[in-house]
Amino acid sequence: MKRIAVLTSGGDAPGMNAAVRAVVRKGLYEGMEVYGINYGYAGLVAGDIRKLTRRDVGDKISRGGTFLYSARYPEFASEEGQLKGIEQLEKFGIEGLVVIGGDGSYRGGLALTKHGFPTIGLPGTIDNDIPGTDFCIGFDTAINTVLDSVDKIRDTATSHVRTFIVEVMGRNAGDIALWTGVAGGAEQIIIPEKEFNMAEVADTIQKGRERGKKHSIIILAEGVMSGNDFAKELAEFGDHHARVTVLGHVQRGGSPTARDRVLASIFGAKAVDLLKEGKGGLGLGMIGNKIAENNFEEILNNQKHLPDLSLYKLNQEISY
Amino acid sequence: MKRIAVLTSGGDAPGMNAAVRAVVRKGLYEGMEVYGINYGYAGLVAGDIRKLTRRDVGDKISRGGTFLYSARYPEFASEEGQLKGIEQLEKFGIEGLVVIGGDGSYRGGLALTKHGFPTIGLPGTIDNDIPGTDFCIGFDTAINTVLDSVDKIRDTATSHVRTFIVEVMGRNAGDIALWTGVAGGAEQIIIPEKEFNMAEVADTIQKGRERGKKHSIIILAEGVMSGNDFAKELAEFGDHHARVTVLGHVQRGGSPTARDRVLASIFGAKAVDLLKEGKGGLGLGMIGNKIAENNFEEILNNQKHLPDLSLYKLNQEISY
Amino acid sequence: MKRIAVLTSGGDAPGMNAAVRAVVRKGLYEGMEVYGINYGYAGLVAGDIRKLTRRDVGDKISRGGTFLYSARYPEFASEEGQLKGIEQLEKFGIEGLVVIGGDGSYRGGLALTKHGFPTIGLPGTIDNDIPGTDFCIGFDTAINTVLDSVDKIRDTATSHVRTFIVEVMGRNAGDIALWTGVAGGAEQIIIPEKEFNMAEVADTIQKGRERGKKHSIIILAEGVMSGNDFAKELAEFGDHHARVTVLGHVQRGGSPTARDRVLASIFGAKAVDLLKEGKGGLGLGMIGNKIAENNFEEILNNQKHLPDLSLYKLNQEISY
Amino acid sequence: MKRIAVLTSGGDAPGMNAAVRAVVRKGLYEGMEVYGINYGYAGLVAGDIRKLTRRDVGDKISRGGTFLYSARYPEFASEEGQLKGIEQLEKFGIEGLVVIGGDGSYRGGLALTKHGFPTIGLPGTIDNDIPGTDFCIGFDTAINTVLDSVDKIRDTATSHVRTFIVEVMGRNAGDIALWTGVAGGAEQIIIPEKEFNMAEVADTIQKGRERGKKHSIIILAEGVMSGNDFAKELAEFGDHHARVTVLGHVQRGGSPTARDRVLASIFGAKAVDLLKEGKGGLGLGMIGNKIAENNFEEILNNQKHLPDLSLYKLNQEISY
Repeated sequence: MKRIAVLTSGGDAPGMNAAVRAVVRKGLYEGMEVYGINYGYAGLVAGDIRKLTRRDVGDKISRGGTFLYSARYPEFASEEGQLKGIEQLEKFGIEGLVVIGGDGSYRGGLALTKHGFPTIGLPGTIDNDIPGTDFCIGFDTAINTVLDSVDKIRDTATSHVRTFIVEVMGRNAGDIALWTGVAGGAEQIIIPEKEFNMAEVADTIQKGRERGKKHSIIILAEGVMSGNDFAKELAEFGDHHARVTVLGHVQRGGSPTARDRVLASIFGAKAVDLLKEGKGGLGLGMIGNKIAENNFEEILNNQKHLPDLSLYKLNQEISY
Repeated sequence: MKRIAVLTSGGDAPGMNAAVRAVVRKGLYEGMEVYGINYGYAGLVAGDIRKLTRRDVGDKISRGGTFLYSARYPEFASEEGQLKGIEQLEKFGIEGLVVIGGDGSYRGGLALTKHGFPTIGLPGTIDNDIPGTDFCIGFDTAINTVLDSVDKIRDTATSHVRTFIVEVMGRNAGDIALWTGVAGGAEQIIIPEKEFNMAEVADTIQKGRERGKKHSIIILAEGVMSGNDFAKELAEFGDHHARVTVLGHVQRGGSPTARDRVLASIFGAKAVDLLKEGKGGLGLGMIGNKIAENNFEEILNNQKHLPDLSLYKLNQEISY
Repeated sequence: MKRIAVLTSGGDAPGMNAAVRAVVRKGLYEGMEVYGINYGYAGLVAGDIRKLTRRDVGDKISRGGTFLYSARYPEFASEEGQLKGIEQLEKFGIEGLVVIGGDGSYRGGLALTKHGFPTIGLPGTIDNDIPGTDFCIGFDTAINTVLDSVDKIRDTATSHVRTFIVEVMGRNAGDIALWTGVAGGAEQIIIPEKEFNMAEVADTIQKGRERGKKHSIIILAEGVMSGNDFAKELAEFGDHHARVTVLGHVQRGGSPTARDRVLASIFGAKAVDLLKEGKGGLGLGMIGNKIAENNFEEILNNQKHLPDLSLYKLNQEISY
Repeated sequence: MKRIAVLTSGGDAPGMNAAVRAVVRKGLYEGMEVYGINYGYAGLVAGDIRKLTRRDVGDKISRGGTFLYSARYPEFASEEGQLKGIEQLEKFGIEGLVVIGGDGSYRGGLALTKHGFPTIGLPGTIDNDIPGTDFCIGFDTAINTVLDSVDKIRDTATSHVRTFIVEVMGRNAGDIALWTGVAGGAEQIIIPEKEFNMAEVADTIQKGRERGKKHSIIILAEGVMSGNDFAKELAEFGDHHARVTVLGHVQRGGSPTARDRVLASIFGAKAVDLLKEGKGGLGLGMIGNKIAENNFEEILNNQKHLPDLSLYKLNQEISY
């Protein structure tokens, strides 16, 4: 394969730039030409495509966001959208593609592979909810971003009784909440994967207060409800002086951590290796510290992502 | 003076620990005994007082919060509360006092000074709104904390149009919003000291969009309204895809920056020098990089704090 | 088992405090008493032992260093030293022990286990070189600390030709150098596990210069040689304007990252579970994201730690 | 004035990008055209000049380094070099210039002003040693970078006696050492502006040890001697187990702090205001929180920079 392209799709994830850099540098190392597609599949269809050089990725490894921008492009689910994309690939002479993003980007990748354009998918989302991998690009950075905020809240030294509710991202996954809850020593973690009872939440806070603990921290995954709604419901069980922190899009930005850059680099280089062998239709993953190559179909149809729920039990035991 | 005491009062401000440390170390250096009072004036009245050693402050300079804890104690505004406090000071043989906190703590300090216990006040609040000083302990740290979040939001690279509203603290002051707005390159800053018109806010966002700018950042001081209320009102002028970030108490924590530690150290040592000379009833400040000694009365009665509004105009010119 | 103890040994590793906290909290959860031993085995022999409460670990999860302090105590290798230690364990009624540190601490743990005091070892060292685990407590934090410095060096924008040599820790292991080299996009990585030739190093720098690259970054593991010696030898091959950065003990400190805290918490709780079952003589590890229980003997006698050398090849391909 | 240009010169200072951004944004706001000159005066002479747009500075405010690069160009001290530069200015129709950097860049600025090209100088250097200003762009960031390392060293919890020598930048100025010494609670600060005696240094360390202090931190300004030389000399007075940290160019990089960005923005906008009025030959400064306009001649010939030496005495009193 002589000419490949790369795009980023879906929500921002720190490390996307490092992944694109690895694809470009490894591609050049293997004697290929590497093209960059702006704005994900929207840009593919529009032909917003250009050749990338070493210089283009020269100062990107430490940068959050993605210099290829990103977009969600639902039209690419349709045959019509896919054919337009293929038209552009043919026009630019591109033979293979690397897509970096959420599993939404894998659907398009599957379609392109079936049409003769081998596509490799790299899991990039702070939600860490793509099947077939223990960790996604962007997750390690996001949990450290949230943790930094939890640490600052823990500095609170006033005598006022307070319940700090930290609403974190995750779509329908509780990964960010679980990891930051354990790492931050939060008293309670509320995630979509676990039933919870507001009366018990209030009771746990109260018990802590009786033990002399003035401040409680609850990490709340957005997939359950918003922080403000949680605070309102909690108030029905007494005045817990709830203060809500909503980091929002802060969680999707920032310079990627060491692990996210290394993960992104390993994935990016591996994608080029696979395309070089003519392989496609695979979503990469890191399972047990070994690279896994998962079929797009498996990822999209069968596999479900589950966070590490042992962390939930662990936190109940050591942070009550 | 042979024995002095120190307390922290009001909301947490990073650098309070460094200030207490400076009072203790300078006091010991001058051959005094230094006592620490927990929980501000509440602890003074309760006699929650103990002698501090070099060891007690040995690892505090980099720590957020305050190891003497803090409290708001409105009862100290009454003569009754003050007399109880004086009782304790006499019981412990304390001759002078350093209070670190908001101007609320200065009232108590004024009363104690009038009753024969010279008190020096150090301005400690992230809101930076204590008269008689350009900068308060905790402000520099808080603006860098907020700035870190604004920087991460700026990494957003998706093609979605978004208006990011970052609600920041400040009570009724716009200092945090002004400084973080300029430092973060936010397109708009909404502060209590400046009238604003939601229609114009929406219009400015729209103009930016027409120029190709997909993402806008608005820094909103909490003294104007909450981020959620702002988003609701903005929505009446069109769909600006507002996303609200509320850092909350994150802004009051964290390891103090270099300037906050140096400011806190200069203030703490100066307080001891003044008490050594028998002086009291003064709130310290840094004006034009020189230490200022302001009478409590002046600070409490006459002077008003104004943020640097030239920053407002500056930002309109360079971040529109 | 009703009463256990915990100590930290060897060089500082961020996350040690979180591990001690997990041992204490899980121990209390299981109805045990948990004692803390200061200064590692030196403190054990000296009887510097006290009961720990929830309060003692209340604000420790985010702190670098170890509040139980640490020491290297070669005397514990002798039967005499071990017997003194056992005397103290019996005196305090301690039935089991958790040791956190380098494999040096495992020798003592093995001896104690053989003498009837089950001991569990948790791998804690920034060098990441303890056999039986992919990652040690402290490694993730250290590589991010180094990476932060490499990122700052990358900002250099002057036109001067420069070769930046960053000397990193690792004893005889190249893990820190490998991971920070890949994450930082360093042009060259010099580690003990790989032969290198200074003439080639100089040649690679020169080739980069001919391609227009003014600044090179070389990550040098201290196990090879010091940064200053490397710079001197490099100078024999031409003037490469070498500038040496030696972070030193900076690498052993700092607030632990999310992963280090989660790893430490998982390990700490697991150690208590094992002691509860009466098991001992095991060094824990995380292999492929699953907890591994390794016999001390295996770790000490047979197993050798190897860093992930695929990263070496990867970096040559994407960062040349 | 309708067309101005901006360049960065000398060593990197975080905030230079923010200053260039402010010049561009304010220039555009005032209806001017703003040109960027790469590589300082070297680029001016070479005609490496291009028009800058809002887009060019769109993502620069948080970036370390300078996107206009920098160079030291001694040839510009000669009339010949200056005339070449003027030729280029005329060729591009540039009427006024903003130079950001050390006072070395002011000499060129003075020459250009005398030749009819009003030039405004902005003080940009982490050494903080440009006369006519309390603070230079880059200083606040550098002291926080160093402080972060000092904090990590302070986490050291091993029982080994250690003297940590942290060699910091500053050319011949002790500003960085003074501020980081106070902020980091270092036991001793060694700066060019103060005589020191190695026997006393050793003695102070020893006294600390006798008081139970195992670890000492000494901040050493590079203008005195290198960290390694200091360690060698110290060793002549006993074994103080010195460990040297040399941050080197790490200190010149990194994302600028809030204050550096605000300072840079205020300076950049002011420079445009002055050029708009036809003024030139001035080096800006912030004195007592007010903008100062200093004649280049004064800065270059008469004024000497002095760090705040009261910090030296303060640290002796509170960190002994």
